[in-house]
Order: sequence, then structure tokens, then C-alpha cells
Amino acid sequence: MRNTRMQESEKKGCTIRFEPSGLKIKVPAGTVILEAAHKAGAYLTSICGGDGYCGKCTVVIDAGQFQSRPTTLLTADEMRENVVLACQTKVLSDMIITVPKSHTLETSQILMDSDAHRFSELAGEVQAGVFTFDPLVRKLYVEMSQPTVRDHTADHERLYLGIRQQIDAPIMQTGYRVLQRLPRLLQDSDYKATVTIGRRGQTTEVIDVEAGDHSKRNFAVAVDLGTTTVVAHLMDLAEATTLDTEATYNSQINFGEDYIRRIIYAEQNDAFDEMQNRIVGDLNNLIVTLATRQRIDLRDITTVICAGNTAMVHFLLNLDSTRIRREPYVASASFVPPIRAAEVGIQISKRGLLYCLPSVAAYVGSDIVAGVLKTRIFTKEGISLLADIGTNGEVVLGNKDWLVCASSSAGPAFEGSGVKHGMRAGSGAIEKLCFGRDGFIEYKTIGDAPPVGICGSGLLDTLAALLTEGIIDRTGRFRADGHPGLTEGDEGKQFRLVEASNNHHEITITQADIDNLIRSKAGVFASIKVLMESTQTKAQDLDTVYLAGGFGNFLNVGRAVTIGMLPDVPPEKIQFVGNTSIAGAKTVLLSRKALEAAEEIASSMTYFDLMSHPGYMDEFTRANFLPHTDLSLFPSVTLGKA
Amino acid sequence: MRNTRMQESEKKGCTIRFEPSGLKIKVPAGTVILEAAHKAGAYLTSICGGDGYCGKCTVVIDAGQFQSRPTTLLTADEMRENVVLACQTKVLSDMIITVPKSHTLETSQILMDSDAHRFSELAGEVQAGVFTFDPLVRKLYVEMSQPTVRDHTADHERLYLGIRQQIDAPIMQTGYRVLQRLPRLLQDSDYKATVTIGRRGQTTEVIDVEAGDHSKRNFAVAVDLGTTTVVAHLMDLAEATTLDTEATYNSQINFGEDYIRRIIYAEQNDAFDEMQNRIVGDLNNLIVTLATRQRIDLRDITTVICAGNTAMVHFLLNLDSTRIRREPYVASASFVPPIRAAEVGIQISKRGLLYCLPSVAAYVGSDIVAGVLKTRIFTKEGISLLADIGTNGEVVLGNKDWLVCASSSAGPAFEGSGVKHGMRAGSGAIEKLCFGRDGFIEYKTIGDAPPVGICGSGLLDTLAALLTEGIIDRTGRFRADGHPGLTEGDEGKQFRLVEASNNHHEITITQADIDNLIRSKAGVFASIKVLMESTQTKAQDLDTVYLAGGFGNFLNVGRAVTIGMLPDVPPEKIQFVGNTSIAGAKTVLLSRKALEAAEEIASSMTYFDLMSHPGYMDEFTRANFLPHTDLSLFPSVTLGKA
Repeated sequence: MRNTRMQESEKKGCTIRFEPSGLKIKVPAGTVILEAAHKAGAYLTSICGGDGYCGKCTVVIDAGQFQSRPTTLLTADEMRENVVLACQTKVLSDMIITVPKSHTLETSQILMDSDAHRFSELAGEVQAGVFTFDPLVRKLYVEMSQPTVRDHTADHERLYLGIRQQIDAPIMQTGYRVLQRLPRLLQDSDYKATVTIGRRGQTTEVIDVEAGDHSKRNFAVAVDLGTTTVVAHLMDLAEATTLDTEATYNSQINFGEDYIRRIIYAEQNDAFDEMQNRIVGDLNNLIVTLATRQRIDLRDITTVICAGNTAMVHFLLNLDSTRIRREPYVASASFVPPIRAAEVGIQISKRGLLYCLPSVAAYVGSDIVAGVLKTRIFTKEGISLLADIGTNGEVVLGNKDWLVCASSSAGPAFEGSGVKHGMRAGSGAIEKLCFGRDGFIEYKTIGDAPPVGICGSGLLDTLAALLTEGIIDRTGRFRADGHPGLTEGDEGKQFRLVEASNNHHEITITQADIDNLIRSKAGVFASIKVLMESTQTKAQDLDTVYLAGGFGNFLNVGRAVTIGMLPDVPPEKIQFVGNTSIAGAKTVLLSRKALEAAEEIASSMTYFDLMSHPGYMDEFTRANFLPHTDLSLFPSVTLGKA
Repeated sequence: MRNTRMQESEKKGCTIRFEPSGLKIKVPAGTVILEAAHKAGAYLTSICGGDGYCGKCTVVIDAGQFQSRPTTLLTADEMRENVVLACQTKVLSDMIITVPKSHTLETSQILMDSDAHRFSELAGEVQAGVFTFDPLVRKLYVEMSQPTVRDHTADHERLYLGIRQQIDAPIMQTGYRVLQRLPRLLQDSDYKATVTIGRRGQTTEVIDVEAGDHSKRNFAVAVDLGTTTVVAHLMDLAEATTLDTEATYNSQINFGEDYIRRIIYAEQNDAFDEMQNRIVGDLNNLIVTLATRQRIDLRDITTVICAGNTAMVHFLLNLDSTRIRREPYVASASFVPPIRAAEVGIQISKRGLLYCLPSVAAYVGSDIVAGVLKTRIFTKEGISLLADIGTNGEVVLGNKDWLVCASSSAGPAFEGSGVKHGMRAGSGAIEKLCFGRDGFIEYKTIGDAPPVGICGSGLLDTLAALLTEGIIDRTGRFRADGHPGLTEGDEGKQFRLVEASNNHHEITITQADIDNLIRSKAGVFASIKVLMESTQTKAQDLDTVYLAGGFGNFLNVGRAVTIGMLPDVPPEKIQFVGNTSIAGAKTVLLSRKALEAAEEIASSMTYFDLMSHPGYMDEFTRANFLPHTDLSLFPSVTLGKA
């Protein structure tokens, strides 16, 4: 008997309460706090994915027993105040844990990109008839007449008739399990039922049937599968509205910062299953968080739609991605058929569908197709350029008649990676920076919080400001003639942007940072140049330039011209469009016609493989100047003090 | 410990060996022999399904203890020789039981129906272009070029391109599991692969992919799901030929002779799962037998196609069949989408498809649709009549512009049931009978074996002969004036058709037999009459009358007119077409266009519900004469000695 009780007590485990959210979870003794937090739905920042070297997952233990591994990432003060790394600490008893505000802030700040604030716009666009409102998965309430001697139509055909009275569905299909349940369900519900129908190509599939009217309970999650960040929007498909958004860092990140490294890691460690588990886990965490917060039953989420780069989609589906990094750079599938979400482990309705937007090539993913869809380049007379600056820089050029695209593997410098004080657009990130008339630097941080680092828009501003102020020359070198902000750091010369104060540290930019940023912008510009040369497009031919990516909210688009990342067009022609990947995914979710458009875009776009393109390396070298070796390409750029 | 051993011993049970097959089974003491035989796979004829009144399931106990219920169906001699009714006898110990040859003979003889001998005809028809040869499931050998830097099409789309070079497949779909396996398989096979594609409505599904060329290894099984007999033909889909055929009695038979009784049984005993298991088991037995005999790997069988009455299809799929027997007589599904055969437990290729032909109504199944397809009534200018005489009698009338149908639940008398010496068309069945010039009876048995009983064609001949010879009057009564063949049996007056000899017993026909046969033919004729009246069709308007069913090989179609089962048309207009159910299923299997035609037939046919039809009962009563109350309907019938 004692033994049994002990087992029960072990099973009972430790109750962990996270403050200030109040989220609770029961876990076995010995569980790592980070894991408990994930299970509880309490988000903790963790870049290294629990390996104990990023030091981001700090929490405060208010009560309870725990056991931490030694770390050098916490100060003695922090340790005295019971601050621990959640990934290095095990629970030994019931506990109360405070999650510092920074976690919440930073997470919610992933959402702070301009797109997340434009929920209504999308619904507006769909309803305004750009695309007909016709979600990929619908719930229809169907009231059928009951069978009589004069009307002995079988149940299955009766349901089809009912559906076809409401929507156009010439080709229909029903799975065996639904077919089997159908007759009893119709009888029990007096032939009043809600049918969930999904689009698979031209076929309308009866996904599920419920007794009674549940047509208003139809939810979906649109996902931007980023290499670094995964963003999810919870949508109400009945109302065509966005209910909530959530984001998390991609937990594959401790297998490598970019996807090429992750592919290599997975090949060497036979870790493709693990790679899939990670991203599916991230998705499930996001979905559970959103559903819990909005009090939505997971079973009422019928659809997940994903856009992302080709490698991320391959990871999600566990498709062979090894050839993405090797000549001839081939994807396993560009057009992924809709599949049952449960087949990859996504925890929505058991019979719900997972859609992945189509991609163009190994290096031009469905996120770019989503961008073309969202910006409607493919419908316009005039020529547009779309540059999506993320971990890679993909560019698309074209109009309603033709589309060309390319990808520069220029690195994620503008996402803050490889830049000493670089960071993503989150709370405390410098998103705006310039030299005031007095020569002092003026800046603005996201959330007006104390400055923590610099995000994409701030880095653009910084580079442009250093150039126009003559602090760096056109090669990006700090000028020898010296500016008071120039100091000597551990890594050589650096420029102080923000002095340390009692609530923040000093923020600087180093020579290496600048070199990285220039390489990155040069990659983007060289790609654009190759596409423009190949299509005989001049800068003045461009009607609109769309700039996408997680730069920050106050992007001064003109700076992208100043540093020579974008061709020299007037600032009013440049439009910052934020995260077009998720916006495009949402458009598709709400309209079957949009999916068809996306498929048309993906199959008609011509891909330029820059690695094998003869002119690319020259263009890249020429673009490694500020703004460019050939100044005649940038007549509008005046280098004041240069 | 003693307890445990006792349980083991109980579990161990009794070992029953069936001779001459040598089949063995272990069953608990108290098991009924019929059940043990079914479990062992030893076939025993049983028409009453184990109720102890048909007397067909005789076996000989060679050794062992048993307990029998009293029966009047065995003679004293038989009892002395340890002959028992398997359904009325329980096993009490290990036993050795001999199954009389008659059981075995009868089974193998199910194949003897004329259809099974006409393999080549069907293939001929498909190739002759009535329907284009385009099997529902195909294997295509696809040689793709390998990806290069200039041709970086993804694997999945590369495969689609390859498929589309060979066939027209605008709408395609691939399941997740195949998609996942595809990239590795294509690389390992140097992009030379065999793809199995199946038709699901307008969609072409990639069912499976194999490395290398296996396009010739594509087999299918066409099935006639009969209430009494299940017939299967093994087809080579690459060659469009029939390789082999096999048949078995429907093992649901011990739940009831007709499907209404089986539905009642299943409702009362919650036995729908068991009902499905039985028929799926029968199918699997047939499939394994055929595959083993033809040395075909089960994994190379990609398709099963079934035609049968609506109830049988419902049993197979475990769809709610309870309303088939209750007003308003509704089916759960008339059009069954193709499903994965494995989902219902059919053991072919794991990803193979199961197709069921569409049906019209609860009482007009897909077997009738198959018959209309096979006879091509729906393409003809002139009016045709199709009468399918099985356990029920379904009739179809129409031409290329209209089709009407009805079903008479007249009972399976012409299948030999409810007739003392009735039997199905098997070895030793009298299939032809007439009075010779000398007044003696001349007959022919199937396989020229010693006579065992009378099958459908023989019963038609017998009834016609008794009428034309004046041995019975127009009401079916034996005339009082007496014929030397008339004797008094246990059940009243009977007529001796065959005298007993040393290698066979006496064969007679009783008054009850004749009454049953007349009721059965009256049901068929009344149904035809209702359809003809409703469409203002006269006998002389009929171009062709098709008679389908398992009558025997030498059906004298004129006899069907003589007894008033079919309208009075010249014999040359009547065509015996055998088992059109399986023939139609095979046609569909080989041509997608034929499936579309079947769907068109099923949805356009108008069903007459005779139970609620005001004129039917009158017509039935009037038809309970030989040939009919109204002789003017049968001007050609001259009743010689009447």
C-alpha cells in the first residue's frame, strides 16, 4: 500500500504557478522550468532553445524548491534575488515563479510589426471583392428535409444536395469515417447538421459533420514559418476577422541560425524527425496559446495555413531538404497538396486541413509568393519590385505579364544577427535614429523603453547617418579624421550611438557590424540589378518598390536608397509592407480564388539562380560600396560631408 | 495455480479436424459444429443459416463426443451412420468430422455459371471502343530527366509532369505519406519510377510510387456481392484480361437467408460489425485464393470493385442499413466515394482503392446498375427490359432516353431456396428438363454428374413442362386425374422427376414448391407490368428482354414466357445474360468512362416503390396464374393438354 501511495504522489507531481499570468501546470518533480513554462503556455524567451548559453530565459523563483546548474550568465546580484535560467533549473516541489516583464514585452513585440496592426485592412480587402470571400475550409449549416416514401434520396446524396443549395461544389468527396458516421448523425439531428467542407484543388471534401448549427465555430491559424520567428494569427473564418496573434522564436534555432546550417546539422545527426518535432511543437504552442486566450476549442480550429521559405516548409512536412543546399538546389515539392493537419502532428480538429502556400524554388519560398499576392504586383500594368529582407533577401520584379525572382543569401544582418547590438524589432529596440542639428544623435525605441539594441530600421538609419555625416567613407571604413563618438573597442574601432546610463548599457556599432550590413545590402542590390538587367528595366521604369520584412514600425524607406540597398527611386514610390508572408497566407485562407492566384504566381514566376549567374558576383562586388561603385546609379544620393 | 490451469484447459478447448480437407480448429466445448466449420474455413452448405430446417449442413462424425438436437430431417439410417446436422450439434471433445463431398462440389460449381466462361468477351468489348480502355487504377512507368541547375523543378511537380506526358490528368492529388517517400525514391531510382494512380471522381490521386518499372504488375478483383454467393474475378489491369475466378457462399448466411433477416438479426444482436467482418472475411478469402493460385503478390492488387444489392454494400462498409427494411426505405449512401480498401479491412495493397458501383435505391442496388451498363439498355433507341432473378427480382425498363426500375421481394425460389430439391447452379443440378415424345422425362445435369437437385433453369423447365403436359392446372394445382409420376409424399402431393438409383436419390417437386415458384414469377411479372403500364409500353414495343441471374447454362428462355414470368415476346428477343453484376463491375474497372456511365444510369433511373404503388397487389394477384389470369396477355402460350 505504501508503494502505491508513493506512486500516486509521484504522479501527482509539482504544481507550478507562473506570475503575473497565473498560468498553472502540474509536472513531475525534476522537470525543467522552461519545459514546464511551455506546457503551461507561459512564454519564455529562449534563443538557444534550452542549451543554457543565450541567457535569455531568466525567471525569478518566488517560492519552492529547485536545483540549478551553474552558469556564468547570471550576476551574483541576480542569483541572490533567486533569478535562475529556466532551462538550467529543475523543479523539486510546488513553486511560484515570476516571469519578468521582458519576456512578455519581447514576445509581444514580435507582433509589433506594422502588419499586426492592420487586421481590419485584410478583411476589408477580401470583402471588397479583390478576391471573393470563400474560405478554404467552411462550415455550412444545412437543414435537409427528412426522407419520405416519395423522397427516398440516400443520406449521403441528401447532404450533397443540401450543400449544393448553398455553394458551388461540382466535385465532392467524403472520407470513409465521415460517411460511416453520417446516417446516424443525420437521423439524431433531424437532418439539421453543420458540415465542414475543405477545398482540395477542384474537389470539395466533406471533412466533418456535426449535429445542429455550429457554423459560427470555424477558426483557423495562419502562420509565417520564419527561420528565426514563427508568427501565428488566429482567424475567425465565419466572420473573416483576425482574433489574436502570437509569435515565438523558432525552436530549431539551436540547430543553426540559418536553414542551411540546420539542414547540415540534421544530415549529420539524422535529426530531420527532431527538426519536424521542433517546428510542429512551436506551432502547437502558438495554437494552444491563442486558443486558450480566446477560449476557443481546439476542435473548432479547422485549418492551418503556412507560408515560409522552402526549407522551413520541408522541415514542417519532413520532406527531404538535403538538396536545397546542394547543386542543383532542388526542392522535394513546390506545390504541397492540402493534407490532414493531424498527419504531421498539428493539434487542431482531428480532421482539419493543413495548407502550405506554393513556392517557386529552393530559395524562393511561399513567403515570397504570399508577398506577390499581397502586394498584387501580378495584377498591375506598371512594373513593381518587391524586396523581402529577412534571414535571406528575396527579390521579385514584374507586372501582370511577367514575374522574375531571385534570392541573395546575404545573411540576416538587418534582422540584427551578426551585429554587436543588433536585435529584432522588439521592445527597447532603436527603430529610428538620426543626427540632430546640434550633431547629437536622436533616437526612438520601440515602446519608448530604455534602449536595448538596434533593429532593422534603426540599422538602416545608422548606416545612412554614418555615411551622410561622413563618419564612414563609401567603403564603410571609419574615417581616420575622427569623430568624438569613435572609440576603440575589443573588436577594433567602433562608434558610440548611445551612452550608457543607469537604466541601459552603451550601444555601439563596430567596423565588423558595418561590413556585415554592407555585404547584406550589396547582396540585395546585386540581386535586384541582375533581375533589372535581364528584363531591361531601368530604375525610372519602376512604378512601386515594396519593402517587406521585420524592420520596425518607423522605417524611413529613403534610407534604403541612401545606402544603396534599393534602386534610386523617389521615396514616395517605396512602400514598406511589413510581414507580407502572413498577410498573403491570410488572404489565401479567406479565398479559394486567392489560392488559385498564388498557384498561378508560383508556377509562372521565372527564377534566376544567382549562384550560377555569370554577372552576379560582379554586381555584388560593385554594390559593396555606399551607395554603389557607380554613383550615376544613385543621382539622388548626396553625401553631405563625404 | 490449479485455478489457472483449469482456465488454460478450458481455453485450450476441443480440437476439431475436418476431413478430407484436414482443416483444423480449436474451439471451446459447446461450440456448434457449423460455427467451428466456418472458423476453420471448411465450407458447409447451409441455406437456413443454422436454424435447423433446411437440412443441408449434414456431416459425419468419425470420432469424438457430441450432442445433437432432435431433427426430422435425417433418416434413421443416417443417424446410425453418425450423420448429424452441423448446425444442431455441439462439440464436447476433440473430434474428427467428415464433410460429405456434396458440400465441396457445390462450392466449386458456383463458378460454372455461364458468365465465368466468357472472359474474353468483356476484354473484347472494352478494347472494341464501346468504352475507352482507361482503368480506374493504373500503373504508369515514368522516366523523368534528373534535375539540373537549368531544370530545378521540384520532385513532386517533376512527377506530375511525367504523368501528364502520358495521360490526361488536370486535377491531381498526392497523399502525405507518398509525398514524404517520393524524393528519396526518385533519387534512388534515377528518376525512373512506377506510379500507381487512381481515379477519385475528377481527381487523379497518386496512390503509390515504386522504384523502377512495375507497370505490368497491376491487378484488381471485381466482386459480385451476392446475398447468397460472392463471386470474384481476378483481373490483370495492364492486359485487360480476366486471369481467374472464384466464388464462395456469403458467410453472413447463418444470420439469415435474405438481407432483411440479416438486418433484423444485426439490429437485435448489435452485430453490424460482425456482419462487416463476415463479408470482408469472405472477400479476403477469395482474394487470397485467387492471388495464391495465380502467384500474384497481394501488394500488386491495387483495386477492388464491388457491385451488389444496396444492403450488401451497406454491410461491407458498415453503413447504417436499418432503414432499408423500414419505411421510407432509405439507404445511407447510393453513391459511395472510392475509399482505401485497407480502411474496411480488405487485404490488398495498403494504399489500394475500393470502389462500389452506385445504386439507385434501397431495393435497386448497384448490381442492377451494372446490369444496365452491361446490356447497354441506356444507349439504345428501342425499349429493353432487364429482369435480374436472384434472391430478389429486380426489373428495369427503358432506352437511351428514360429508365424505370422496381424490385419485387418475391423470394429466391428460382435460386432453389424454398424448393425441396432446389439448388443453385452447381454440379449435379438438373439444368434442363422436358418430357420426351414417349412421355418420359429427359434431363441434363451440370457437369453430367448424377442428379442432386434442380437449379433455376431446370425449375423453369419443370414448371413449364408440368403446365404444358397438363399435370398441373393454371393455378398450379396437381390435377386430380392423375399421372403415374404423381405420388403422395410427407408434404402432400408431389411429382417424381427422377427415380432413385444406386448413385442418386429420388428427385421430386411438391405442391409447396410449385406454389413458391409461382409466387416468385408472379412478383417478377407484376413488377414488369407496373413499369410497362406506367410508361405505356406494350409487349410488342419491347426490342429486347434481358434475363439475368444464376439460372444455369442451358436456359430455355421461352419457358420464362410459358410460365408467365416474362411478357409474351418471341424467344429470339429474349437474351440470357448470366451474371451481369460482375460483368458490369469489370467493365467499370477497365474504363473510367464506364464508371461515369454507371453514375449517370444510377442518378437518372426512376425508381417505383411497389409497396406503396396502388396497382401492384392487383397485378401480383392476377399474375398468380399460369401464365396469367388474363390469357390475352400471352397469345403465344398454348397449353397443349390443359
